[in-house]
Amino acid sequence: MEYKDLLGGKGANLAEMMTVLELPVPHGFTITTDACRAYMYKGWPKELNDEIVRHVAALEKKMGRTLGDAHNPLLVSVRSGAKFSMPGMMDTVLNLGLNDKSVLGLAESTHNERFAYDSYRRFISMYGRIVLGVEGEVFEQALERVRTAEGVRTDAEISSTALQELCVIYKDAVAAHTGKPFPQDPMKQLRGAVEAVFRSWNGPRAIAYRVREKISHELGTAVNVQAMVFGNRDENSGTGVGFTRNAATGEAVPYGDFLVNAQGEDVVAGIRNTEDLNALQRKFPEIHAELMDIFVRLERHYTDMCDTEFTIEQGKLWMLQTRVGKRTGAAALKMAVEMTKPTGSKKTSWKISRRDAIMRITADHLDQVLHPQFARKSTPIAKGLGASPGAAVGRVYFTADAAELAVKRGEDVILVRNETSPEDVHGMMVSKGVLTARGGLVSHAAVVARGWGTPAIVGAESLKIAEDQFSVDDHVVREGDWIALDGATGDIMLGKHDLMASTPPVEFATILQWADEIREGKFSVRTNADTAEDARKARELGAEGIGLCRTEHMFLATERLPVVRRMILAATEEEETDALEELRRAQKEDFVALLTEMSGLPVTVRLLDPPLHEFLPHVSELEIQKATSGLSMQEETLLNAAHEWSEVNPMLGTRGVRLGVVKPGLYAMQVRALMEAADEVSAKGLQPIVEVMIPLTVTREELALARSWVEDVLSDINSRPLPSAKKGAKPSKRPKVSIGTMIETPRAAIRADEMAEAADFFSFGTNDLTQMTFGFSRDDVESRMMPLYLEAGLLKRNPFESVDQTGVGELVQMAVQRGRKAKKSLKLGVCGEHGGDPESIAFFYRVGLDYVSCSPYRVPIARLSAAQAVIGGDKVDTK
Amino acid sequence: MEYKDLLGGKGANLAEMMTVLELPVPHGFTITTDACRAYMYKGWPKELNDEIVRHVAALEKKMGRTLGDAHNPLLVSVRSGAKFSMPGMMDTVLNLGLNDKSVLGLAESTHNERFAYDSYRRFISMYGRIVLGVEGEVFEQALERVRTAEGVRTDAEISSTALQELCVIYKDAVAAHTGKPFPQDPMKQLRGAVEAVFRSWNGPRAIAYRVREKISHELGTAVNVQAMVFGNRDENSGTGVGFTRNAATGEAVPYGDFLVNAQGEDVVAGIRNTEDLNALQRKFPEIHAELMDIFVRLERHYTDMCDTEFTIEQGKLWMLQTRVGKRTGAAALKMAVEMTKPTGSKKTSWKISRRDAIMRITADHLDQVLHPQFARKSTPIAKGLGASPGAAVGRVYFTADAAELAVKRGEDVILVRNETSPEDVHGMMVSKGVLTARGGLVSHAAVVARGWGTPAIVGAESLKIAEDQFSVDDHVVREGDWIALDGATGDIMLGKHDLMASTPPVEFATILQWADEIREGKFSVRTNADTAEDARKARELGAEGIGLCRTEHMFLATERLPVVRRMILAATEEEETDALEELRRAQKEDFVALLTEMSGLPVTVRLLDPPLHEFLPHVSELEIQKATSGLSMQEETLLNAAHEWSEVNPMLGTRGVRLGVVKPGLYAMQVRALMEAADEVSAKGLQPIVEVMIPLTVTREELALARSWVEDVLSDINSRPLPSAKKGAKPSKRPKVSIGTMIETPRAAIRADEMAEAADFFSFGTNDLTQMTFGFSRDDVESRMMPLYLEAGLLKRNPFESVDQTGVGELVQMAVQRGRKAKKSLKLGVCGEHGGDPESIAFFYRVGLDYVSCSPYRVPIARLSAAQAVIGGDKVDTK
Repeated sequence: MEYKDLLGGKGANLAEMMTVLELPVPHGFTITTDACRAYMYKGWPKELNDEIVRHVAALEKKMGRTLGDAHNPLLVSVRSGAKFSMPGMMDTVLNLGLNDKSVLGLAESTHNERFAYDSYRRFISMYGRIVLGVEGEVFEQALERVRTAEGVRTDAEISSTALQELCVIYKDAVAAHTGKPFPQDPMKQLRGAVEAVFRSWNGPRAIAYRVREKISHELGTAVNVQAMVFGNRDENSGTGVGFTRNAATGEAVPYGDFLVNAQGEDVVAGIRNTEDLNALQRKFPEIHAELMDIFVRLERHYTDMCDTEFTIEQGKLWMLQTRVGKRTGAAALKMAVEMTKPTGSKKTSWKISRRDAIMRITADHLDQVLHPQFARKSTPIAKGLGASPGAAVGRVYFTADAAELAVKRGEDVILVRNETSPEDVHGMMVSKGVLTARGGLVSHAAVVARGWGTPAIVGAESLKIAEDQFSVDDHVVREGDWIALDGATGDIMLGKHDLMASTPPVEFATILQWADEIREGKFSVRTNADTAEDARKARELGAEGIGLCRTEHMFLATERLPVVRRMILAATEEEETDALEELRRAQKEDFVALLTEMSGLPVTVRLLDPPLHEFLPHVSELEIQKATSGLSMQEETLLNAAHEWSEVNPMLGTRGVRLGVVKPGLYAMQVRALMEAADEVSAKGLQPIVEVMIPLTVTREELALARSWVEDVLSDINSRPLPSAKKGAKPSKRPKVSIGTMIETPRAAIRADEMAEAADFFSFGTNDLTQMTFGFSRDDVESRMMPLYLEAGLLKRNPFESVDQTGVGELVQMAVQRGRKAKKSLKLGVCGEHGGDPESIAFFYRVGLDYVSCSPYRVPIARLSAAQAVIGGDKVDTK
Repeated sequence: MEYKDLLGGKGANLAEMMTVLELPVPHGFTITTDACRAYMYKGWPKELNDEIVRHVAALEKKMGRTLGDAHNPLLVSVRSGAKFSMPGMMDTVLNLGLNDKSVLGLAESTHNERFAYDSYRRFISMYGRIVLGVEGEVFEQALERVRTAEGVRTDAEISSTALQELCVIYKDAVAAHTGKPFPQDPMKQLRGAVEAVFRSWNGPRAIAYRVREKISHELGTAVNVQAMVFGNRDENSGTGVGFTRNAATGEAVPYGDFLVNAQGEDVVAGIRNTEDLNALQRKFPEIHAELMDIFVRLERHYTDMCDTEFTIEQGKLWMLQTRVGKRTGAAALKMAVEMTKPTGSKKTSWKISRRDAIMRITADHLDQVLHPQFARKSTPIAKGLGASPGAAVGRVYFTADAAELAVKRGEDVILVRNETSPEDVHGMMVSKGVLTARGGLVSHAAVVARGWGTPAIVGAESLKIAEDQFSVDDHVVREGDWIALDGATGDIMLGKHDLMASTPPVEFATILQWADEIREGKFSVRTNADTAEDARKARELGAEGIGLCRTEHMFLATERLPVVRRMILAATEEEETDALEELRRAQKEDFVALLTEMSGLPVTVRLLDPPLHEFLPHVSELEIQKATSGLSMQEETLLNAAHEWSEVNPMLGTRGVRLGVVKPGLYAMQVRALMEAADEVSAKGLQPIVEVMIPLTVTREELALARSWVEDVLSDINSRPLPSAKKGAKPSKRPKVSIGTMIETPRAAIRADEMAEAADFFSFGTNDLTQMTFGFSRDDVESRMMPLYLEAGLLKRNPFESVDQTGVGELVQMAVQRGRKAKKSLKLGVCGEHGGDPESIAFFYRVGLDYVSCSPYRVPIARLSAAQAVIGGDKVDTK
């Protein structure tokens, strides 16, 4: 177990500051996370009582003061401290140890009665609120009444007597609300505070935070108990927070806020206006110099930007905590790059390696610099699933047509729908953001928006959408009203919000270039792109090929849908062949554009995958129309076809290669279109590299049959002369086409040895593989069940966001081993959405994949994560 | 490779008859299955030409005659002969070697011109039809014209001259139809016939037969070439078929048919009335005695009943083929049991062991004696999926109500529906058979009918069902018309058919008792039963417990559905609790009846599994009603709920344990009902043994949570005093309840080690496991795709009928190993429909399961198959 696991981040840093860096840190002790875990499983551990007594005794000895002493009492602060900083948990109780007796002692030892009672009333309210669960309002109102009675504006002006009375009022309030007197025994106070910290670990906000941040519920928190120092002692005291560099911009200039004569909570609460480090330098030049020196030592020690809390007590500086500081994406990039150059004076110079620099950048950092962000967010009125990251602001429209019109008028538009379908695409295309009330992270809206990098929120189930307005609770939003979407968090806000632009800083390119150098030849990054436009964008963002081109999108264009339907409805072979011919010509154009864009890079084309009913109208709509206004002959035919092709569980129905078996000629048509396109592109002197991918296979025989269709077309095409290349250009040879399969059913993974016999490559379709391995239909379970499952700890992660390494991952690993054993040259990649998730990318590298493929806007993140995987990951032996 | 694999059944037996038994068999040779396989993959193997020439030369030498000789020609028969007898393939070409020259030689050597030309015209028509593909009608018509011209009634009366002319007419007809003259070169004739045999292996009927009989398409057929002997030489000649025992009844009395002066085809064609063995004895006493002696030797050699073909040529007996004979179920049972007692004279006595007797009975044999069978079947007008075996005859009705009324009038009824739902159950219950146009083998109709042993055919897609009639092609069947269903094959016939009753013979019980003795303590058989009635039936049929009680059926009863809906619609926790309470009372009654029936045997109760929308009306029905006649308030509520709970892929949606998570209290209610029932049954002095099963789990945490719900109820129940037992009876202790889970998702199988931590037993739900492992929604793919897949050889077996051993089976085996490694005492069983399939049962035994569970009417078959598995199966090492 790491130091940090046991002591929590805060405790570990305190220990380091004190013992290694020898900084001025108030004495204290840490109750380890072990105790918290014991508490979670079996309640308060008896042995902890003794431990606390021992710790307190040692602390009292060091400080020469005792808890609750009537003359010179020891006071302590109690802070939670988990391995990872967690805002959802109990923060801090200050001044613990004060009671009716020791408050007198504090007054005596500090010669300041007002200070003593001010501390006591702060303690009662803080302890009452945080530990005993009394509403904060109770104390606020009492304080307000005292201010009124005293005729003063700020708390600092309240008299000592009034504060003394306030303590009595507070204690009564606590007794009234808890049914018990305010605890006077300092040890009892301490145990109460420790238990409150433990409890806060499983508070709903903390759980929600961990789910969001993917922190294990098992870790538990440590508790830090420290002797109090007082920034509110007098005008020669103060408290502040300091960053060793600017956390917003990344500039190597220390930054901080501080307040004279105040305790930590005052700085955070924002009641008084804080001053900056320049003011500190003016008012306390020596302290400032000492702090700057500490900053340098901290940076050198942690080799990173640090965030600190400090207190000045009667002219003496105390460091209360430090940690490696959070930063914006832009700052992270800037700092990481700058820290690779020597920092500090010659004697104390330090720097980090490029590898370290890469490891310090997170996916969120890149996301931030890639997508516009809110300058400031208002409170959300509702929450959905964050389906495509980025901030979007616009006026609400409820149909694609209305959205399109509004954009033509020059408006910024947010398209709001219950759900979207291919018919809404023209409206989605022009909108700043998309919001739907239904659907999960693979719904049409989510997939399309993500493909374009358009911010989107889906499955916002609390929205009630009517014709020209939607409502949430008491809020009603009408057509044309402004709203704002945070596509990362799923937050929906009212009103127009300001956005910060998203021009990545120069360091963005530097870091990614370093990342590319590290993973070169080891792990590549491709993209999922269906159109030339997507392909161009992805190539700009660094994609090294297309790992998945879904050809079904080519079928959905408005002018093609009728042809697709003719193919489905064909009564004779001739009709079917005619329709297929027409589709072939159309598809060929698409392929020409795509292959032109990706010249020199591999393009994996997946043959048609979705069930045919997706190209037909909904049964229920037609049925209703039939029951009301009647159907035309043609509509009646469509209804019959829709009935015929409708399925109970379309996910597990007639799709993928099964379509090829049921509709022979379909796949051959697609391959012909593709290969004719490749020839045309070759003739332009470009270099198309084609990989044909068969979806949803389950047996070797099935794959071998599909492969034979492809090979038949190839041998036919290869028997024709290659169209002559540009004048003067050397006539190029047709490149070898590789033929492979998706591994997306558990059976294909298990029988990967057999599948490999008929495949040149595997691409793991981990979306479907996850659906089938868990029996989770993403459309159905993600919004209803997944939140319950994550909160209850039944799943550690949403397996659609990050690959389930011990279940689905085991199938992937099995398939890699068996596939490679049968065919050493087998190329292996992944094209599910996990290909854009950092943890999944690391896993895929470890088990031996050659590449990941993700949506264009995730490519930079995948490049970074892939490099991090190469740096951090030992490969599993898959021989 | 076995002898039989290479020579085919027929060839191997001929070789044995000739060399081992030294019976009078005409000389000949066999072209092995190797040649056929070579032909299938690469066309006619050149080296085969030489091989045939060599074989023919050897045969000519042995016979002292040559093919095509002008004076004393050799003639041969050519027969196909696969490892397993296959009626779908080419049968026989007789008299091969005849041509315009050798026919004269035959006339010369036999001193019978008429015989020679009769043989020639038979050969031309047979060869023309079978090898060259000329329509048989062509020959029939020519023959008819000759008969008319000659003014005779039978072929035997036709003059030699006319036959000679007929040969010319036949040859011209062949030339006209094939564009080539009839082949005169005997070697060419022979190669043609051999190739025709090879081709027939992949004829559509042969493929269909193999699919039905589960014979591998890879085997190929052998070809048997034998010197001709002539039963049609004169009145001192003849031909016949003989069985060493009665194949219909099993009696140990030889049985046969024969014809004087005839060739084999005449016996089979049924043109002339055959005579029995008594007639043979009268007409040819010495031949009869020789044949009876041969029968005894054959039985002793094969230690089984044999089926033979023989020919008498001018007073000499020749054996043309023999094989172990097919027999009815009743005969199989009778023979198997009788053969365990010494048979034959003292000197030549033989018998088989009980183990052999068990191995000779097939599932089909038992099926036959368990279900009524057709005395004689007419040609089917259509085919569906055979969903529940047995023959049913009745009048057609199209609604459950009409069916019920007709039954009350005393009619036998076949219920015909597009598909059935719980609302049709009262009609299904009283019908002799059920026929649906849609749905697969797990559709409502199939599952319900199978549960009751009612013959059923589902997914008969060619049926067009209107309000009071259905049509197939040109046939129209109206309400009240008679039809007949064969629930084993899926055949649908017109008209009233006679049925043979189904009282199992006494040997049925004997064989099953022997089977039970063999598998005792090694492999048990339970049943899937949801009601006391099913349980009783299954216990009668030998079930040793219930492996799966589906509690959802308890929710579907007419009077309970409204309560279930109240539970689903509940707006407040109180409403939900009320509804759950009411359901608890109702479920308890069911459990009391069930546990009473199964006293002393384990009962595995699966908590609620199906998605909740199954208990709500269909969205589309309500939507149509809304659009036309409008909805009441209550219906509107139902519509909203139906929308809310409707799912895109219900198979992979909110069902199984997920329901328990989404609707807390549901599972606790069910367990409470169950345990209160157990107490009540204990109080009657009976012994309930309860196993609680959690469905559709995917993680250990989920199972542990569900387990805690069960344990909470148990500890609550256990804290109450046990209701006092019957007066005087010893107060019984509550038995320990075991808690386990279905393993039906691939993930649960992969993580079986973790699942085992929270489970006392696993029951493999191989239906769902197959659906998820293949990504096959059975409702969708079984009728549309599966036939295509089986015919194309993409799947060797329908994985829903027999477990896919290398895919799904590997998951089962993995789960067994990992589960047992984590918990040695883990009890393992299977409750998917595979639990009733003989091959699957053998597999489950090999990988180490403790029991199988199947529907009540499959229990006898499972008992037999389980014993056969124990006899034949080595267990896989799963340590």
